[in-house]
Amino acid sequence: MKAVAIVSGGMDSVTLAYYLTSEGYVLHMLSFDYGQRHRKELEFAQRAAKTLAAEWDLIDLKAAGVQRLLRGSAITDAAVDVPEGHYSDETMRLTVVPNRNAIMLAIAYAAAVSDRATVVAAAMHAGDHAIYPDCRPEFVRAFAAMERLATEGQGKIDLLVPFTDKSKADIAALGARLAVPFEHTWSCYKGEEIHCGACGTCYERREAFQRAGIPDPTRYTTTPIFQAP
Amino acid sequence: MKAVAIVSGGMDSVTLAYYLTSEGYVLHMLSFDYGQRHRKELEFAQRAAKTLAAEWDLIDLKAAGVQRLLRGSAITDAAVDVPEGHYSDETMRLTVVPNRNAIMLAIAYAAAVSDRATVVAAAMHAGDHAIYPDCRPEFVRAFAAMERLATEGQGKIDLLVPFTDKSKADIAALGARLAVPFEHTWSCYKGEEIHCGACGTCYERREAFQRAGIPDPTRYTTTPIFQAP
Repeated sequence: MKAVAIVSGGMDSVTLAYYLTSEGYVLHMLSFDYGQRHRKELEFAQRAAKTLAAEWDLIDLKAAGVQRLLRGSAITDAAVDVPEGHYSDETMRLTVVPNRNAIMLAIAYAAAVSDRATVVAAAMHAGDHAIYPDCRPEFVRAFAAMERLATEGQGKIDLLVPFTDKSKADIAALGARLAVPFEHTWSCYKGEEIHCGACGTCYERREAFQRAGIPDPTRYTTTPIFQAP
Repeated sequence: MKAVAIVSGGMDSVTLAYYLTSEGYVLHMLSFDYGQRHRKELEFAQRAAKTLAAEWDLIDLKAAGVQRLLRGSAITDAAVDVPEGHYSDETMRLTVVPNRNAIMLAIAYAAAVSDRATVVAAAMHAGDHAIYPDCRPEFVRAFAAMERLATEGQGKIDLLVPFTDKSKADIAALGARLAVPFEHTWSCYKGEEIHCGACGTCYERREAFQRAGIPDPTRYTTTPIFQAP
């Protein structure tokens, strides 16, 4: 039973990799460099693959020239500042990378055909739905339906998104049960030495550990925005 | 009115580029290197862009590491021989590159969002439907539906496939009317100096010119398989 999983090196996708392994899948992990500001998460993805004895490939969309097509996103375009604030704020729309998930999933399906895998897996969760249209359940359903036609006659490959109804706190709790080394996962959108603690995804990361009641091993530049109750 | 078009440098997609220009679109052409055996078609795509004063980008999926995921296709895997015979033969299944169109179209949609284009265009035609599932109208419809969700709030982008009900002979006839320089288009799957004349796509190319009653400017290694009536 083989699965191709998209693993960025963030806490959600690393937890996904641990979860799939615990479910008995032989994993092929794919990480994508699309010109995001930090590369640490890719190192953490590779590290997780090593720990889990999974196959790992880095797909370098930057080398492919895709990055220069992705203008206007704070994630891939140095001319756009990374916004601070809550992850679900309207200002976070600046962090949308156009069509990122469709591109990554399409490449993952190609790998799944070659691998004769039965599953492509990705780690979008309920908190992503507000801002990122390509994380919503209706997108996932439409993508799976499209791939059923695109890969007709080349094996039946399911699209697995086990966290689609879960909060990031739920993922933190699951990860803790699976002994995920959260200190070796990366969230921050900025490209600095340690997590900034103030961008949307740092905010979300902090909140997840707090809500799940799990010690947060992350070093942040800024002090916490809110305290544990 | 701006369109992002996938143009390989073959006769279908170069005709598509000429057609879109004649319809008044400002064109952004994307060509993809996914490790196909020949590179001539990419040079022809670039040449067409220059002639049409279109923006052109080469997306190098080989540099991205995608090629090594695409095992088992005669097009991308040197260990698999290119089959000869009619384009619609079962043996042509060896020329399927897993999920190729979904990958290229997803990247084209990302470009379209950044460009604020209203159209993504591709050149699949009726003759492709037998062997290539990702060229069929039902795939195209499902892909467009998926992208409507994936790019929600980022502009309304239509997927234009004007040749979906046309034969390659129809495309040759249209290209002749639009003065497409067919001698600067490439079809052959093999990576040789001139068209081999015997692989599936050479066979199809020859047949298209014959059926359309248009002089074929192509130099082939082998003699024609059939004669004009």
